[in-house]
Amino acid sequence: MSTGRVLVTGASGFVGRHVVTALSTAGWEVHANGRRGGTGPAATWHAADLLEPTAAARLVEAVQPSHLLHLAWCVQPGRFWTDPANVEWVEATLRLCRAFQSAGGSRIVVTGTCAEYEQGAGVCHETTTAVRPTSLYATAKAATGAVLTAWADEVGTDLVWARLFHLYGPGEPTGRLVSDVIAGLRAGREIDLSAGTQVRDYMHVGDAAAALAHLVGAQVAGPVNVATGVGSPVRQIAELLAEEAKAPHLLRFDSAPTRDVPLLVADVGRLAAAGFTPRWTLGDGLRDAYRTWRG
Amino acid sequence: MSTGRVLVTGASGFVGRHVVTALSTAGWEVHANGRRGGTGPAATWHAADLLEPTAAARLVEAVQPSHLLHLAWCVQPGRFWTDPANVEWVEATLRLCRAFQSAGGSRIVVTGTCAEYEQGAGVCHETTTAVRPTSLYATAKAATGAVLTAWADEVGTDLVWARLFHLYGPGEPTGRLVSDVIAGLRAGREIDLSAGTQVRDYMHVGDAAAALAHLVGAQVAGPVNVATGVGSPVRQIAELLAEEAKAPHLLRFDSAPTRDVPLLVADVGRLAAAGFTPRWTLGDGLRDAYRTWRG
Repeated sequence: MSTGRVLVTGASGFVGRHVVTALSTAGWEVHANGRRGGTGPAATWHAADLLEPTAAARLVEAVQPSHLLHLAWCVQPGRFWTDPANVEWVEATLRLCRAFQSAGGSRIVVTGTCAEYEQGAGVCHETTTAVRPTSLYATAKAATGAVLTAWADEVGTDLVWARLFHLYGPGEPTGRLVSDVIAGLRAGREIDLSAGTQVRDYMHVGDAAAALAHLVGAQVAGPVNVATGVGSPVRQIAELLAEEAKAPHLLRFDSAPTRDVPLLVADVGRLAAAGFTPRWTLGDGLRDAYRTWRG
Repeated sequence: MSTGRVLVTGASGFVGRHVVTALSTAGWEVHANGRRGGTGPAATWHAADLLEPTAAARLVEAVQPSHLLHLAWCVQPGRFWTDPANVEWVEATLRLCRAFQSAGGSRIVVTGTCAEYEQGAGVCHETTTAVRPTSLYATAKAATGAVLTAWADEVGTDLVWARLFHLYGPGEPTGRLVSDVIAGLRAGREIDLSAGTQVRDYMHVGDAAAALAHLVGAQVAGPVNVATGVGSPVRQIAELLAEEAKAPHLLRFDSAPTRDVPLLVADVGRLAAAGFTPRWTLGDGLRDAYRTWRG
């Protein structure tokens, strides 16, 4: 695994904050960008708005990075699936990668999403499972990944398209499964849940960050699932959290409709072959999320 | 069919010149853009470089179009399949469509390509044939079409993604089947051809332009194949041209490798349902291409 000077975008976000720490710990010189900047000793911080047409070129010029990890995108909870700003993020992402490559940068990691895969595909493999997004967000991500992968091939740049699955852990925004269950348990209020039979691949954000940091310096190229490869029923996730809170009576299963597909789990053969293994078990990870919760 | 003020990009190109005439004849107020401008009584001409980040917004502001027909893209023969500029055209296309919609424009037609479809799919239908592009050009086109279609749904804009198949006719660039056969016949030199068994859907550019002009004012939205729906062996195309030239002895079949898939023809049910029927038969169209040739 090589190191060098890495530019991280979206560095003040849920995943970004953990990634900055992971990269710094691994010996990288980290330049972190957030639209409103950021703070922390692990990185030199920048405050560029990548939706502004000339911002990417100026940022790259200032930093002269050898590696790029691009996390920034529109992620407003409840809105990002249909947000027209997804189109601007396609443009901004392509523009940033072109600027990075033009300035002599050598290796790029950009984050995609498990929502790119065909709904109901079950265990998703990067190249054999059909990509068939149904939302504007997932369509924009899949399109960006396809264009960047084909472009990287033509210009001779290494590029990883890292498809994130479900994440939880310190700093998780509200409006998501683990954060909302923890918030309910912490407040001592009853929590309405579906039957919870749907199986998902939930990864501790610290592991996702470590995986992304690993991919920045690894040899692999193309699409790579970032996930655990282990499926767990949503019910089990809620029960593990309630056990830690010693409040299983607060969980009200079958009081909300079950949404989405029964099974969505990653094939993680490519991530494992690239040399990465997650650190957290689901039980330990959820306990960590519960204990470090700041409502 | 409604009319209004239409902005046409790529208006000085092979298809664009015919489109400007077709739209003007149909009663549209045509504003034509080319990177180096253009001339002709059928349109008001503009000279914006759409790869320049602020050009689209300024052009839309100046024209205030009600309709947009976007043809511009990198099309340098022999180079466009792998040209890194394809990525810039993704950005420029998204930017232009956003600017048009922000300024109150109501309906957009953008051109895609039959190369978006899975190779070897045979008769290609817009929604049931798999989209599986293999070149950077086709990947960039498919990605742009997917993003624009999903975006148009969210913002409530009508958008047609018009997939062009094979074209020929007046103004055709060299380095293509019909133009190269005509050039050889006109020069009286022998022409090396494959066996010519592969079946393609060749449309006269005047019909393609009329179809695009029709789609600008039609009710349809989403992907629409622009083609004849009639497949012809490449050998037949060369023979029809040689017959017109009275020089069948110049055709040397089986002296070049057969490239690509045996069958690539459009299902044109959606174009027909939108109210468009081609005017040219293959024989008449090829005779027209031969007679109007300017080498």
